[in-house]
Amino acid sequence: MKKISVGLIGLGTVGSGVAKLLYEQKELIRRRIGCEIVVSRIADRGALKKKKTAVGVPNENIDTNIISLIEDENIDIVAELIGGLEDARKYLLKCFDLGKPVVTANKAVLAVHGEEIFEAAFKSNCPIGYEASVAGSVPIIRNIRESFASDDIYEIAGILNGTCNYILTEMTEKKVEFLATLESAQKLGYAEADPSFDIDGIDAAHKIAILANIAFGSPVNVDNFFIEGIRNIHSLDVQYATELGYVIKLMAIARQEEDGLDIRVHPALLPQENSVAQVNGVLNAVSISTSHAGPQVFVGRGAGSDPTASAVVSDIIELARSNVLGVKSRVPAASFLTECRKSLNILDRDLNSTKFYLRLSVLDSPGALSEITGLFSEQNISIETVLQKGKSVSEGYVPLVIMTHEAIEKDMSKAIENIVKLEVVHSEYSMVRVESNHSSASED
Amino acid sequence: MKKISVGLIGLGTVGSGVAKLLYEQKELIRRRIGCEIVVSRIADRGALKKKKTAVGVPNENIDTNIISLIEDENIDIVAELIGGLEDARKYLLKCFDLGKPVVTANKAVLAVHGEEIFEAAFKSNCPIGYEASVAGSVPIIRNIRESFASDDIYEIAGILNGTCNYILTEMTEKKVEFLATLESAQKLGYAEADPSFDIDGIDAAHKIAILANIAFGSPVNVDNFFIEGIRNIHSLDVQYATELGYVIKLMAIARQEEDGLDIRVHPALLPQENSVAQVNGVLNAVSISTSHAGPQVFVGRGAGSDPTASAVVSDIIELARSNVLGVKSRVPAASFLTECRKSLNILDRDLNSTKFYLRLSVLDSPGALSEITGLFSEQNISIETVLQKGKSVSEGYVPLVIMTHEAIEKDMSKAIENIVKLEVVHSEYSMVRVESNHSSASED
Repeated sequence: MKKISVGLIGLGTVGSGVAKLLYEQKELIRRRIGCEIVVSRIADRGALKKKKTAVGVPNENIDTNIISLIEDENIDIVAELIGGLEDARKYLLKCFDLGKPVVTANKAVLAVHGEEIFEAAFKSNCPIGYEASVAGSVPIIRNIRESFASDDIYEIAGILNGTCNYILTEMTEKKVEFLATLESAQKLGYAEADPSFDIDGIDAAHKIAILANIAFGSPVNVDNFFIEGIRNIHSLDVQYATELGYVIKLMAIARQEEDGLDIRVHPALLPQENSVAQVNGVLNAVSISTSHAGPQVFVGRGAGSDPTASAVVSDIIELARSNVLGVKSRVPAASFLTECRKSLNILDRDLNSTKFYLRLSVLDSPGALSEITGLFSEQNISIETVLQKGKSVSEGYVPLVIMTHEAIEKDMSKAIENIVKLEVVHSEYSMVRVESNHSSASED
Repeated sequence: MKKISVGLIGLGTVGSGVAKLLYEQKELIRRRIGCEIVVSRIADRGALKKKKTAVGVPNENIDTNIISLIEDENIDIVAELIGGLEDARKYLLKCFDLGKPVVTANKAVLAVHGEEIFEAAFKSNCPIGYEASVAGSVPIIRNIRESFASDDIYEIAGILNGTCNYILTEMTEKKVEFLATLESAQKLGYAEADPSFDIDGIDAAHKIAILANIAFGSPVNVDNFFIEGIRNIHSLDVQYATELGYVIKLMAIARQEEDGLDIRVHPALLPQENSVAQVNGVLNAVSISTSHAGPQVFVGRGAGSDPTASAVVSDIIELARSNVLGVKSRVPAASFLTECRKSLNILDRDLNSTKFYLRLSVLDSPGALSEITGLFSEQNISIETVLQKGKSVSEGYVPLVIMTHEAIEKDMSKAIENIVKLEVVHSEYSMVRVESNHSSASED
């Protein structure tokens, strides 16, 4: 029976998960693909300390020599699981140079160096799998590259960061503030010691950049679109959202419009009945809207050792099948042939139109509401709902919540700029965009 | 540029959808796979009447000669889209004989003749795609065969029939009876003139049989498991379910247990917060629970010309990619190598354990409840909730709703048998199983 040799670069959470999975599931995999897949070599900078975590791999096959592993002619497939940017980029390019099939779980390197990596993979006809880079166990990359290959994709949107979703879910269910929730998430291992990558939206931005790239066939630079995290979401806003029939989620959105690409990451109010809104805790959810298949929603675990390893191994299995058949790249790395990609213009956020949720702190004085609504109407923004109730929170200020109808982002900014200049309005406010016509699998 | 020729057998709703999609999306497909896919021939018994529905295919390429189409050496991929059993079976086997890659949307033939078809495909090393056979546009076949190939699959469950889901959703939202809802579904084209295949659960049973077959690597005979449709669901039951915090759905369930396969199709009460419970209208939803990826839920359109065509074309594209690479079968037809399949024993339904919802009609007399609960306790069934209220529906009978704790099916049957013998209890009753520990993507 043919044996496929895998070399792992990196023996952290994902790397040890992959070693364990391939060892535990060896027999099942053989029953499905007719050959054996073994981890025959592991390279990790901290190899000496980590040897114990590599289930089923003899200690003498674990060292620190990454380049030697990639160059090893006995290694059929390389799995790059170290994360980070420069080194990972170098190792991936080295694999393509040698025509060595490679699998990666590294969203950062694909989001930042995606163009170079996808093009090098395509030119060398070297297969690259990266299912684990976005939404963990949810097979979104394979489905975009293959299941919806005949369809125009209109929109991809969803919850791509489990840490933020956990924090926002806790804030909703337990009515606690952001910082307290973050601390408990850190204790539970759902948030890193330095959580900024997650809670500032960078991780979700990397992921939506990759999805937009392969869905629309266009390079997407993460530096060129709007990213806002969840640090400024207050418990009060979560509670008002609930009262208004909404849920606050960190949404990553990429929409192909007539004149370009609307792509952004920010907290958003979703209607409670929206199927993505109902996805809680550390789960991820991705909705896709396409020309023929119609709307789709996928939900599953976006992180963790086993779920991520499952996605990495699904790619290893795909490349093993190709190896057995003597085939190199079967699907273009970036889903489109390199020469058939078209660079889409990223739309100016200032011109984006959504509904807005705004919470102001206002002195409880006659005429205050009239002054505020006057400044909205000056910018041609009409108001859908006003909520004013409750006692003063501090120094005579009471919360005033306004939901607008659809308005242009720059008009809204201008309105807020003028409103906080009013004497009766405190300078601190909360503003959250509303995604009410966000597509998700619906009956219509 | 290479051109892949597709021959369509059948020019009904799906066939004309496939012709239209391949014509409309020719340029997009070329940008993704680097070759052109054209429908170069169509065979349909009623070809003369239907020629107009084949967008982009010249009339002279449409005839009634199906065998000649399959034998045509210029045809690279055959798409069998006629439905039905015997003829479809014959055509598929003919394709394997000739080593001609084939795609089918026909769940009935795969459910009934699956073993023969999968084995013939495997032996001839001939690829077969059947993504469209289950859940329309939802890529569940590809995900089971590829994305979760390393995982033990514990359970597949979901809503696999859009007609039933539409009817049950309407009954819930509009509080109307089954027959009236069925009639309006027929008027809207959501139910066939003869709806029995859908509403009696046969269609869902075919689909879960296919999914169980490829998920567990075991033949599954649709004649050997329990199938119950939605004809006996009353508006009153839907309303009581709502009151108790549940939704009634037609569930198709396949679970691998230690001693065999628990597979069945029947209406079930799902907790309202369950993610499958929230999928309404004609949509389908499939939840999968696996050893490493964890729980997953997929939602999308399960029927209709465009969604089904999208799934068919995703298979055609996969086979076209293989054709370009000179590769035949890449993934075993039934997901496992033929010799590595294991026949699972289908568990006896009588021994199955769930909670039950029971609605009785009871004469409003002292001691009735005590008599009834006594008969439950005789079978060791304990009761979770009793709802008795409302006025008498007819002849002094009032509805009495009982939710049990987990009980064995045969004990429940025995209890009901005894209960309806009581003088105070009417012989007509409603009994619906409860799937409260049904796995769906959850945080835990």
